[in-house]
Amino acid sequence: MLPSFYGNWRHVFKLDPERQIDDATLDALCMSGTDAILVGGSSGVTFDNTVDLMSRIRRYEVSCAFELSDPSCGVPGFDGYFIPSVLNTKRSEWLIGHHVEALRDFGHLLPWESIVGEAYLVLNPDSTVARITGAEANIPSSEAIAYVQVADRLWNIPVLYVEYSGTFGDMELLKRIKSTMKQAHLFYGGGIDSPERARQAALYADTVVVGNIIYENLDAAISTVGAVHPSIKEQGHVF
Amino acid sequence: MLPSFYGNWRHVFKLDPERQIDDATLDALCMSGTDAILVGGSSGVTFDNTVDLMSRIRRYEVSCAFELSDPSCGVPGFDGYFIPSVLNTKRSEWLIGHHVEALRDFGHLLPWESIVGEAYLVLNPDSTVARITGAEANIPSSEAIAYVQVADRLWNIPVLYVEYSGTFGDMELLKRIKSTMKQAHLFYGGGIDSPERARQAALYADTVVVGNIIYENLDAAISTVGAVHPSIKEQGHVF
Repeated sequence: MLPSFYGNWRHVFKLDPERQIDDATLDALCMSGTDAILVGGSSGVTFDNTVDLMSRIRRYEVSCAFELSDPSCGVPGFDGYFIPSVLNTKRSEWLIGHHVEALRDFGHLLPWESIVGEAYLVLNPDSTVARITGAEANIPSSEAIAYVQVADRLWNIPVLYVEYSGTFGDMELLKRIKSTMKQAHLFYGGGIDSPERARQAALYADTVVVGNIIYENLDAAISTVGAVHPSIKEQGHVF
Repeated sequence: MLPSFYGNWRHVFKLDPERQIDDATLDALCMSGTDAILVGGSSGVTFDNTVDLMSRIRRYEVSCAFELSDPSCGVPGFDGYFIPSVLNTKRSEWLIGHHVEALRDFGHLLPWESIVGEAYLVLNPDSTVARITGAEANIPSSEAIAYVQVADRLWNIPVLYVEYSGTFGDMELLKRIKSTMKQAHLFYGGGIDSPERARQAALYADTVVVGNIIYENLDAAISTVGAVHPSIKEQGHVF
């Protein structure tokens, strides 16, 4: 099997095409030593704002992938594409329905070798993604583990994304999730706004995703890279 | 990776625990040269009738697996277990919901190494399984292919089961399904009641499932083994 484009990612910054980001900030992120820039958002993602952001990131050597929820935003030129499915929603269109519609129309055009299915377990009921997808995020740990077992062990889904978007998650649960998993690559996102939280999440997640703090406190965002990649720790950033 | 318990199956007989089968018929099936007996049914499967059927099959050397839709029927002693999910239903409980409930309660007890997720594409709208699960079986080929791509390519599901239960399916579509698949093992079931139909389905399916005809015309059922396994063709059966 070919190595995946995300297999060695320990730290990524997630950028939302809908949100403004100036050149100096983007430069700091791309030169920070992070493993990749992940482009995606829960709403307001368009072909135009995605192309614009991608072309700016592409000036740098850093890897760059796209989380593609809407096929009409299928911008070519990324290193890889994640196609998210939400496990814990009763609205089957967010698990499989939208995907089938998209593949029915565009499946024959896709660069399959760089496309990966990604199973989301949405665990913050107040997040935008939970509202949009109708995710039942307020579930006991035993149920969260059961979702992971279906995705990872029964279905062999290649990527599992534990999403606490907007809040820092339950690290005990993340630990249990990682220990029950057989094969999937584990992303963790939500509330990573300090080196200490990045370090904690990196104990269990294969990849730690740093998002919102980028737009609130760039120094804090940059400081998470060194926490996950100790060799980068002392370099600081370009500001 | 360990070889799967089903990887070399070309032909299986599927027995419904709810339906009566006499000893002579069971003997003929188990000694026919088929690769395995698959136990499962869309309704009326209980712990008791499953145990009873399994213990009778276990007198023979033939492999024996169970398609487990209801965890309260989780009878130990089979060589392997398939956990079915229906891809083309809007009722998410048949795709993931029942599975999560079951794993929440029983997940820690399961022999994971012999359990495999199985994605059903239900294509006969008049079948019992379509009625029970609310499958949208009347779909264009392009949509069927899209479901296969989600299951096989995005999610890496290990087994895909194309189910025409009660009628012989569209072999052109089966051919297209097989050719779009990247990694899953393909089961075909529905309307296999003659050597010719078995041969046709075996051109594309990895495993051909022979079910209903067992209860209607045993000679015809047995004759499908030789059609898929030419070396057995001339042996006839024990009747």
